[in-house]
Amino acid sequence: MTQITQARIGKITAEMEKAASLESVKPEFIRQGIAEGTIVIPANINHNQLQARAFGKGLTTKVNANFGTSEDYDQIEKELKKLKIAQNAGADAIMDLSTGSKIKLTRQKILAAAQLPVGTVPIYQAAVKTIESGRSIVEMTVDELFAVIEEQAVAGVDFITVHCGLTLETLRHLKAEGRVTDIVSRGGSFMAAWMLHNEQENPLYQYYERLLEICFKYDVTLSLGDGLRPGSLADATDRAQIHELLILAELVDQARAAEVQVMVEGPGHVPFDQIETNIKLQKELCKDAPFYVLGPLVTDIAPGYDHITAAIGGTLAAAAGADFLCYVTPAEHIGLPDLEDVKAGVIASKIAAHAADIAKGVPGAKARDREMAVARKNLDWEKQIELAIDPAKLKKSRAEHNQTLKETTACTMCGSYCAMKIVAAEL
Amino acid sequence: MTQITQARIGKITAEMEKAASLESVKPEFIRQGIAEGTIVIPANINHNQLQARAFGKGLTTKVNANFGTSEDYDQIEKELKKLKIAQNAGADAIMDLSTGSKIKLTRQKILAAAQLPVGTVPIYQAAVKTIESGRSIVEMTVDELFAVIEEQAVAGVDFITVHCGLTLETLRHLKAEGRVTDIVSRGGSFMAAWMLHNEQENPLYQYYERLLEICFKYDVTLSLGDGLRPGSLADATDRAQIHELLILAELVDQARAAEVQVMVEGPGHVPFDQIETNIKLQKELCKDAPFYVLGPLVTDIAPGYDHITAAIGGTLAAAAGADFLCYVTPAEHIGLPDLEDVKAGVIASKIAAHAADIAKGVPGAKARDREMAVARKNLDWEKQIELAIDPAKLKKSRAEHNQTLKETTACTMCGSYCAMKIVAAEL
Repeated sequence: MTQITQARIGKITAEMEKAASLESVKPEFIRQGIAEGTIVIPANINHNQLQARAFGKGLTTKVNANFGTSEDYDQIEKELKKLKIAQNAGADAIMDLSTGSKIKLTRQKILAAAQLPVGTVPIYQAAVKTIESGRSIVEMTVDELFAVIEEQAVAGVDFITVHCGLTLETLRHLKAEGRVTDIVSRGGSFMAAWMLHNEQENPLYQYYERLLEICFKYDVTLSLGDGLRPGSLADATDRAQIHELLILAELVDQARAAEVQVMVEGPGHVPFDQIETNIKLQKELCKDAPFYVLGPLVTDIAPGYDHITAAIGGTLAAAAGADFLCYVTPAEHIGLPDLEDVKAGVIASKIAAHAADIAKGVPGAKARDREMAVARKNLDWEKQIELAIDPAKLKKSRAEHNQTLKETTACTMCGSYCAMKIVAAEL
Repeated sequence: MTQITQARIGKITAEMEKAASLESVKPEFIRQGIAEGTIVIPANINHNQLQARAFGKGLTTKVNANFGTSEDYDQIEKELKKLKIAQNAGADAIMDLSTGSKIKLTRQKILAAAQLPVGTVPIYQAAVKTIESGRSIVEMTVDELFAVIEEQAVAGVDFITVHCGLTLETLRHLKAEGRVTDIVSRGGSFMAAWMLHNEQENPLYQYYERLLEICFKYDVTLSLGDGLRPGSLADATDRAQIHELLILAELVDQARAAEVQVMVEGPGHVPFDQIETNIKLQKELCKDAPFYVLGPLVTDIAPGYDHITAAIGGTLAAAAGADFLCYVTPAEHIGLPDLEDVKAGVIASKIAAHAADIAKGVPGAKARDREMAVARKNLDWEKQIELAIDPAKLKKSRAEHNQTLKETTACTMCGSYCAMKIVAAEL
């Protein structure tokens, strides 16, 4: 039985208990959200050491970190190090996007190491397998694709990104209106190339019930991918994107009816003034299904700083209702992220999630900020370090910036002209 | 004659011409804005090599970088290096906040080196002088304070931050309601300590006309400081802050009547959901005077990353109408920024300003993003580097992240599974 099946018959599972203990909500709140489809707990029945957590309406905004091997960086151990860094920095979920040579082994090791929910994009493995067998991606068979999905479900993957809403009609919109950056989703591009080449409907759409059966059996949460997410501001909120969203909305209904947990993915590159509209539209069309967004990035011109462009968009998105932010690292648009990039990406997304939780009134979100403010007022540096989002960084940076400081409570910004001290003496 | 005097008699000055040439607007648009008080051109008649630029309604959002010596980091040459870095990174104005031992000399060198408008906070020099004369800050005389202001005006300072709105009644609100972090503005703390100790009204408020006379004579633009800007989320949008804003709004009217250019400063630490309210309130109360904000920082818990917390708040603030963002560096709340901090701070603020300009529809703001999108689609890395907000960083990062890349057009994120290539082959 899936979490949704149990929620609907009124049962509070161990996963619901565990997820509730991580938030300021009761297990019953989570059970009800799962029953209604506004909350998901990605928890494959075969992912043994998972510490379950919940994503969705009324909960803290969660953060995902991506990694995985690629053909040019094919070292499993390095990816496991990134996993550790992401967990330590506060990620709530991870995705293994490997396209290197040992996808199955990489996933096994990641699942064994991860206490967080693990997601994948099964078509990556299906594509790599097809190419390894000497054929082109467009020659992949429908059965081969579903075999990979089943293999990953059996292995214990908690959520899968599947681009089920990218239909022939969606592609017609793409071609009719035109785009600057066409398709930038890797999975979306595989799917679209397959459909265009074979002149056939998307098998993930056509055989969606087959997908639902697999997900139901292992309680894999569907993450309905937006294969046509805009890859530039110029393409944001266009007809192709919105058409795909309409399809995804219908697929949400079907998943819920089949007692399969489901969330929906969203853009991408979006001008700041279009973000709220995107979120509200998704929430309305998809009947409050949890919304998982990449970024949104609010400008195209800042490669090297896209953890910042994404934190800006992510804060507004989450404040407007997005539930789950996929991190973006400083390496975005440049190359595969290294260890430092992973940390920078997780921290920037955590900042966005936290700022949004304060804005949308998540219970308890402001408490740590208040404690930090009190520690600042008291010039209590030990306490500030303890409360900081990255204690090690604050400790190191304070030491580096204050080598010439003549006394220990202030800092080199103001020295003895410290506002806190001057006012405290008179107030 | 000040820019405002000339604007009101219909004259387009050389500074208006120059400022218009940097934007997609006509000189007449700027002249009209200056006449109405919605635009300022900080341009002291004695700042000879200034390349004037305009700040305010209908123009691109501008970015300020602060620096200056402190008692613990008292090296003029280092501050001049920071000036160069800030200019190269795209700052539109700089402020010299020196409190080190050679304030006058530092300012002279900065004014000589800066083609950007230069601002100061005169009470810093007045405070340092008082302390150097063996007295406490609270023993500074009113004449001493005004002597420093006049000295700085004569020297060529283009805009000055003066905390004129911090009155005894404002302090009564502060004490009555209570705060977590009291006063965090350094200038505000000097002023408040002086007022509380001497039980006298703020001389910058009481003798505001004397200030206006000096500013009129040299065309120094007033930047009315918010001495009670909140220093933590807990203190945001409280009665003391809003009372001070009410006073500042009245002082805007008086400055405009005296033909003195004026802008208003704003917070600070503000929850994301209160930012738009803060901006709209200032714009309404102050009759569209240009608004110069510090941050706003959307959380207190991220020291080491406050360039990001400020970029998040700054984007929303500027999109809602703020005209001028004061940068915040990664060293905020830690110590005096070093060279790298200055660059990181300017770039983060420039990203916020640009994202906001796109959101508020500043003419031409989207063009560079579109060019970047086209370059990405074409996998044209040279063009991407040219268009990037930090070309050197992109060039270096691309080299570092792609050492194992097997071919030259893609990147290690996807290698031969590049969405751009796969779709281009089929579409």
